[in-house]
This record gives sequence, structure tokens and C-alpha cells, in this order.
Amino acid sequence: MSCYIAIVGGSSCSEEEAVLARRVGAGVAKRGGVVVCGGGSGVMEAASAGVGEAGGTVLGILPGDNPREGNRFLSFAVSTGLGEARNAVIAKTADAVIAVGGEYGTLSEIALALKIGKPVIGLKSWSLKPPHFLTRTMISAESAEEAVDKAFTLVSEGL
Amino acid sequence: MSCYIAIVGGSSCSEEEAVLARRVGAGVAKRGGVVVCGGGSGVMEAASAGVGEAGGTVLGILPGDNPREGNRFLSFAVSTGLGEARNAVIAKTADAVIAVGGEYGTLSEIALALKIGKPVIGLKSWSLKPPHFLTRTMISAESAEEAVDKAFTLVSEGL
Amino acid sequence: MSCYIAIVGGSSCSEEEAVLARRVGAGVAKRGGVVVCGGGSGVMEAASAGVGEAGGTVLGILPGDNPREGNRFLSFAVSTGLGEARNAVIAKTADAVIAVGGEYGTLSEIALALKIGKPVIGLKSWSLKPPHFLTRTMISAESAEEAVDKAFTLVSEGL
Amino acid sequence: MSCYIAIVGGSSCSEEEAVLARRVGAGVAKRGGVVVCGGGSGVMEAASAGVGEAGGTVLGILPGDNPREGNRFLSFAVSTGLGEARNAVIAKTADAVIAVGGEYGTLSEIALALKIGKPVIGLKSWSLKPPHFLTRTMISAESAEEAVDKAFTLVSEGL
Repeated sequence: MSCYIAIVGGSSCSEEEAVLARRVGAGVAKRGGVVVCGGGSGVMEAASAGVGEAGGTVLGILPGDNPREGNRFLSFAVSTGLGEARNAVIAKTADAVIAVGGEYGTLSEIALALKIGKPVIGLKSWSLKPPHFLTRTMISAESAEEAVDKAFTLVSEGL
Repeated sequence: MSCYIAIVGGSSCSEEEAVLARRVGAGVAKRGGVVVCGGGSGVMEAASAGVGEAGGTVLGILPGDNPREGNRFLSFAVSTGLGEARNAVIAKTADAVIAVGGEYGTLSEIALALKIGKPVIGLKSWSLKPPHFLTRTMISAESAEEAVDKAFTLVSEGL
Repeated sequence: MSCYIAIVGGSSCSEEEAVLARRVGAGVAKRGGVVVCGGGSGVMEAASAGVGEAGGTVLGILPGDNPREGNRFLSFAVSTGLGEARNAVIAKTADAVIAVGGEYGTLSEIALALKIGKPVIGLKSWSLKPPHFLTRTMISAESAEEAVDKAFTLVSEGL
Repeated sequence: MSCYIAIVGGSSCSEEEAVLARRVGAGVAKRGGVVVCGGGSGVMEAASAGVGEAGGTVLGILPGDNPREGNRFLSFAVSTGLGEARNAVIAKTADAVIAVGGEYGTLSEIALALKIGKPVIGLKSWSLKPPHFLTRTMISAESAEEAVDKAFTLVSEGL
């Protein structure tokens, strides 16, 4: 089975974040990874567009009841009907998570992924100061390419 | 976006049910539909195999935490970590549901789909006796081909 | 810990069903059971009122995001935000389920409870015809008192 | 309906955190609030014990399938069977959240609560550095009493 990389971030985002998300999406797709995202607008839409340009596959895990409410670049959409609880579904489905920018919803996805032991790479995203006894934390990347590289490296080490 | 048809049934099944599920899976795929299923064994695995033979796409919506626990014929797997509550995710994602045989888990998927207004076709499956004031109910099919036909017809009327 | 009995049924119901639900709620409360329900109107509200009259406790497991959207007789409300997937939470929390009347949502709760091995008693509710290889099924009761009796008996045998 | 205050924190915790959680639980109960927690060990158990000493009510929203797996101080337990997705149920049910210490699971609860607009008070907990455009954030408290005070004040302003 392919490697699943979640790309998470805000449903509204800056132009800079959209460019980064698009590059991350394209980068994951070019390496043969399946992109998982929340299926909405902002970072999710930009990442989905990048996947599409690279000819890859992007799954949208939607919070609502309607599979046609996702962004137009999704390959496939799953309607969870779970509201914010769908963030846990994204974390569970992903082998690694790349966070681009992001607000509190994104922070919850980062935290849920770290909780269940998935690698998380941040790109212009939250900076965490975990208590000293927590050895796992987010890893920073300075570019879309570095984020993709680190995600694949960490997944290959973990699988 | 493609039409999403869920194929639901028991995680163990008779040989006859497996043959039917395989034909239903292949039939949906040949018509260009995306198959959604619970991703497990039994009817789910047989349906997934049928989709694969027809060169189609099948999404597994798994109850557990591990995307690699699905059957080997899945195109893509989503790990919900929700246990039985993932049955609601299948009902919400599907445009129509085809039930092949099935036990109580399948009955819950039939009921959830009917609750939210999705067409449900039964093939050697549960026979419901709804109270008189309920106008919607399951529709029976006598063959895999008829089940697929009815599903696509009902979806095209509803969309 | 107390025994938890779910009372499930439609969000709209007949006068006869409301009377039965009220008696079931009161009966469970008088026996010291905690009533669990979906927290809404119809059978849920009538059962909650019955619990209140008997001085018992009733938990509402709501589908929405707002704990103040439950009926006015609830002792405590939990907002799941899960939509129909909350039906699985009711089945998991209950030691036994009593269904009064009910439509497809109720049928899904009956099916989920039977799937996970919880006793289900029906009072003027769905009549199931399970396939021959399924040994567990719903048990019918003819009165509210009989339904409560059977629920407590089955729970005490199972615990 | 009463005010619902979630007390969140790690399933293992330091002695200092346990003392704080116990005082927070007792403080909320004395003010007539209902305590909501994850129902487990560590901070959850200490908070539940504090509620019990003060004669209050504490609801445990459990991740698993068994309502009898919660800590022994719970007044009532709801088994969600949702795994980590139950963290969203806690955030939705609460009018305000008090975090005592905590690891990544706690961080996810903080983030989910802030995402949906609930006040969050931190006591020896995570320190967040949200991006400049986010106006809402966690509020720090230096003592259990201050945390309880702030939670009730923020809820009374918001309701």
C-alpha cells in the first residue's frame, strides 16, 4: 500500500501558505504518496491543487454530511459527518503529517498525530514547547521540499 | 465527481454471497462508480476483489486505527478509529447502498442510510417490515446486475 | 456502578408510544437504573419525563454541538457533535436497550446494540427476521413493566 | 441547566498536578458546576476524586467501549468507543475547559475547545504562541482557585 501523507492547515490562508501547500502537495504526489487532507478550502485546497498538477491522488476527509462539499481538486471524498472529530480520522489515516501554517484546528491535528505516534513536520506552522518529559515533538522544515523529504524519511524509518 | 456506491455485508459470508458481492463490485466499477465499503473480510473483500478485476476504485472505511488492516484489494483505506460508529461514515459517503446478505452490523448500515435518505438495495439481505407511516424502505434485487442497475437509476433520479 | 438502560425511539411519536416511554423511564428509574437516551423529543422526551417523575437520572447523548439543545427533562447532556454516529455511543454506553416504536434511527440503534452483544427489548417496535444463523435477536415485551423487567433480568444475567 | 466545566490533563501526572486537579474538581463542584472529564487515570482521576469529596457530579467521557473502565470516582460514564476522537466530545460538551499539566492528548483538547470558541484556562499546562491574527488563546492561572474563578467568570460572560 502507498504511503499516506496528511497535509493540514487553515481553511483560510495567506498567499505564501497557499504556494507552500501547493508545492507540498505536488511533492508528495511526485514521490508516489497519497495525500490526505480535510478536503476544504485554504491550505487544503491549495495542497489538493498541487496533487492534481502532479497527477497524484488526494483524499478529502470531510467534516460534513455531503461528499460534494469538498474542494474541486479532490480525487475522492469521504463524508464523516463528525464535525471536528474528523480531525482524529485524518491523524489515524496518515503515516505522517505536514502542517502548513494553521490555526487551532490544525493544532488539534498536530496534537492528535503526535499523541498516536505519527511524525509531524511543520512548515511556517505552530511552534510547540512540550514539557521536558515528552521526547517526541514536531520537526520544522524551511521549505516545501524539505518538509516532503523529512516526511518520507520518517515514514520509511517507522514502517 | 463520480457516483459512490457502498457495498455492505458481513465480515464472514457464504460462498454464494461472495460471488454476488464480487459481481456487484465489478458491476459498479464497470459503470464508473466508486465503491465504498468497510474494508474488511467477507462481503467487503469479495466486493473489493470484483472492483479490482474491473479496474475500478474501492475505498475502505476501516473501524480501526491501522490503514494497513484492510483487505488486500482496497485502492485506498481510511482508518477512522471509530469502531462501529464508522458505519455512519459509510452511509454518509455513499450515494446509494447495496447490501449483500449481512448480519446486525449490515442492518445498522441499512438503517443509517435509510435514516439519512439514501437509497438501499438488498440482495439476499434483510427483509424489513417498516411501520406503515414510513414510505421509504429497502428495495429488493434478485441478481447482482439488477442491484447495480437499481442503484445507478435511483442515484441518477436523486442527484 | 449503576445499571445503564437506553430507551430509544422516534423523535416524533404517537400518544400511545409517549405513554409507554414515560412508564418505561419511570420503571427503570424506580429500579435504580440510569436511563440513557438520545436527549431529543418524542420517545426520548417522554422517557426523560418519566425518569424525572420517579426521581431518577437520565443522560442525553445528543447528536449536535450544543448541550442546551436537549429536552428539558434531562439530568445531564453530552454533546457529541457526531450526527447519526452518536447512535453507536448510546449502544456502547447501555447495558441493555429498550426500543419503543421507532423509525430508521431507532432500527440502527437496535442493530448496533445487537451487533455488540447488548440485550434489546422491543415494545411496539420493529419486528426483525434475522437470518437463521444469528441466534441473538430482539425480545418482545407487551407492556412497559414487562420491558423493564426483562431488561433488568437480562442485564443481571450478563454482568 | 448547570454549567459544565471540563478538567483535562494527562493519564499519568505528577503529585503536584494531582493535587491541583483535585482542588480544581472540588472547586468546580462547590460552585455547582458539573465536571466533565475523560474518565481515566492521572489528572482525570484526581479531578474526579475532588468532585466526589465536594459532593458534586462528574461525567466521564470514555474513549473505549466499556462504561466500567472509568475511574472509580465517576458519577456517570459514557462509553464513546471513538478512541482519540472522543476528545472532541469533551470539548463540545464543556462550557469551559481547565487544563492541568498535560501531554499531546491534552493539547488536542485545548486546541479543539479553542477552535469551537470555548474558554480554556491553563494551570501548569501548555503555553501556546498562536499566530498574531488569532485573538483567542488560553488564559493562564496560578492556582486551582484562580482557574475555577476564571472558568466561571468566562462562562457567565459567554452564556
